[in-house]
Amino acid sequence: MSVMTEARTGTGVPPTGTALLEPTYEGDFVLSEPLLLESGRTLASPTLHYAVYGRLNAARDNAVLVCHALTGSALVGSWWPEIFGLGGVLSLENDFVICINMLGSCYGSTGPGSVDPETGKIYGPDFPLVSVRDNVRAQAQLLNSLGIRCLRLALGGSLGGMQALEWPILFPERIKRSLVIAVAPLSAMGLALNHLQRQAILHDPDWEGGHYLQQKQPRRGLALARQIGMMSYKSAELFDERFGRKPNRNGEDPWGLDNQGGGLIGGRFDIAGYLDHQGQRFIERFDANSYLAILRTMDTWDPLNGHTSPSAVFGRIQARLTFVGISSDWLFPPQAVRQFAQTICAAGVQADYREMTSDHGHDAFLAEQTELVRLLQ
Amino acid sequence: MSVMTEARTGTGVPPTGTALLEPTYEGDFVLSEPLLLESGRTLASPTLHYAVYGRLNAARDNAVLVCHALTGSALVGSWWPEIFGLGGVLSLENDFVICINMLGSCYGSTGPGSVDPETGKIYGPDFPLVSVRDNVRAQAQLLNSLGIRCLRLALGGSLGGMQALEWPILFPERIKRSLVIAVAPLSAMGLALNHLQRQAILHDPDWEGGHYLQQKQPRRGLALARQIGMMSYKSAELFDERFGRKPNRNGEDPWGLDNQGGGLIGGRFDIAGYLDHQGQRFIERFDANSYLAILRTMDTWDPLNGHTSPSAVFGRIQARLTFVGISSDWLFPPQAVRQFAQTICAAGVQADYREMTSDHGHDAFLAEQTELVRLLQ
Repeated sequence: MSVMTEARTGTGVPPTGTALLEPTYEGDFVLSEPLLLESGRTLASPTLHYAVYGRLNAARDNAVLVCHALTGSALVGSWWPEIFGLGGVLSLENDFVICINMLGSCYGSTGPGSVDPETGKIYGPDFPLVSVRDNVRAQAQLLNSLGIRCLRLALGGSLGGMQALEWPILFPERIKRSLVIAVAPLSAMGLALNHLQRQAILHDPDWEGGHYLQQKQPRRGLALARQIGMMSYKSAELFDERFGRKPNRNGEDPWGLDNQGGGLIGGRFDIAGYLDHQGQRFIERFDANSYLAILRTMDTWDPLNGHTSPSAVFGRIQARLTFVGISSDWLFPPQAVRQFAQTICAAGVQADYREMTSDHGHDAFLAEQTELVRLLQ
Repeated sequence: MSVMTEARTGTGVPPTGTALLEPTYEGDFVLSEPLLLESGRTLASPTLHYAVYGRLNAARDNAVLVCHALTGSALVGSWWPEIFGLGGVLSLENDFVICINMLGSCYGSTGPGSVDPETGKIYGPDFPLVSVRDNVRAQAQLLNSLGIRCLRLALGGSLGGMQALEWPILFPERIKRSLVIAVAPLSAMGLALNHLQRQAILHDPDWEGGHYLQQKQPRRGLALARQIGMMSYKSAELFDERFGRKPNRNGEDPWGLDNQGGGLIGGRFDIAGYLDHQGQRFIERFDANSYLAILRTMDTWDPLNGHTSPSAVFGRIQARLTFVGISSDWLFPPQAVRQFAQTICAAGVQADYREMTSDHGHDAFLAEQTELVRLLQ
């Protein structure tokens, strides 16, 4: 999931005009007890890095939890600023907004790059599977520490939406509303895309079985993984509109002989130059093992897993839910999101489904924030 | 493009029941003169490997050219047997069917693994770009050598369809009909998919800049490329139906701890096991440099390239054309095929468009041959 506005001179998403928001506070919370994971393993006193915006009121009933997607951070004011806009979903005057970096990430919470207090060594490839549910349980402990008993709202897109839905399942009495955007349990095609990304990293000799030095990570593999991901975050329509069959803007010639690698590799088309650029940007900001960890968090999420009936799982929910599908999303197609919402509705939950019309694909919830806000008003 | 019925115990396409056909003749044709390529380079006396089925009649007017897709071979009777079936598109009694391996391939025609007669060395990464048009010009010389002046029909799917359309453009008086299946100039998304496949190969250290030994080719990169391709040849619907979110059939557990690579890599889902299996099968039968060569042939095809108006290109066509789109094809979506057919129609060409309803994706023209035959009757 891209968490920033993706831009390359001349074709990127236009600047939003909204200034990035500074958090009121950014810091760490260390769980006082080991976190027992669904997989059976434990994380000894993990850290959650988080950021807050606005102020908690005296009644402590204005808390909103924003959940980030695959490669996001706690700094929601930087990657989702327009959600706070005038008439937006969130208000800095009325809400106390908190965003918590996921376990497994490389943006402050405990992840594969952290030291395992039990061994004194970096987790590396031994970092355990941390499920969406595990994350939500850890988040609840952080909210406890802030004296927040009940959330006014939880929201998120993609992997963030998985967390926003797990909240009312796990803690029915602690949340009033959830916005679940562009997500359903990952389909076979989604699992395929994640598998290919994982293979790209594991095939890179610099991965070294996950025991690489932080400054010498598997850059080529991680870049290719990101490119595979990017393809699924956008739509064919958007690619045709922006890039079509144009040669790369730096002047390379896909039909000619001006290639670096001999006859088998021609100059790039513009779409190839774009994807390469995205891959290069990504390896400067993300860690390969964290990427693997969070892919697995995403892969394994299915609230129905291990349960026989949807009502046994979803029947617990007391919150009001809103699901959002994106018309051109082929990673989580709108039909799948709608069908998922219907299944949950059928379990007696108060839920509605809205569809965002956009040719930005899965990324639309980040690329077209004002449209999203309009849809949610 | 998969050229064989893809099968894995329990989920593969069911056996067709049609016996594979043996060719009447299989052999090589060596061009007597150098082939001047669109890129400006030449291939000195290239070889075309070909197979024929049935017999040429006395009038020499019953010849049909079948053009293969990305990784196909001249043995059309092995990969498209049902096209010859009762009431099929082709008849072994009445037709003389010829199929010619593409230049760049590793199935008999001159490709990157061949020796360049001008240097005495294997072409390797210096094998030039051979366009679809270059292939068609070479094919015409082979037909000349057989005394075939005019084709009754040319047909093919995907890259094969590109050739089947170039025939009446380049040689309007030498062909009466073309069947152009599941193809249009590659979209930006298609170019993206090919770019990712190319990167997967180039990132493999065993690629060695294209100078690998034949017995030590970049297997991991080529397997990943094939997996990326396979994803685009099938549909999300088919994947959901066949694999869903099931764990891999060998008993791996995606949620548990029984993984080989530590905590970051879990047991595979069934779709991942399927893709890995396809990748492993592919590296036993195909060559990485050939794959790169033919990807480029596919990337660069656009009959309108360098021309200002469709009528200047398509207005030459005298043959009757039939275009086929596949409902679930997302590599060459049916809307794109239909629109392409309309553009050609608008240039005054006698062309019709038919749509095959299938959830097999792009691969349907190989996976559901009897459906295709029914549509074309």
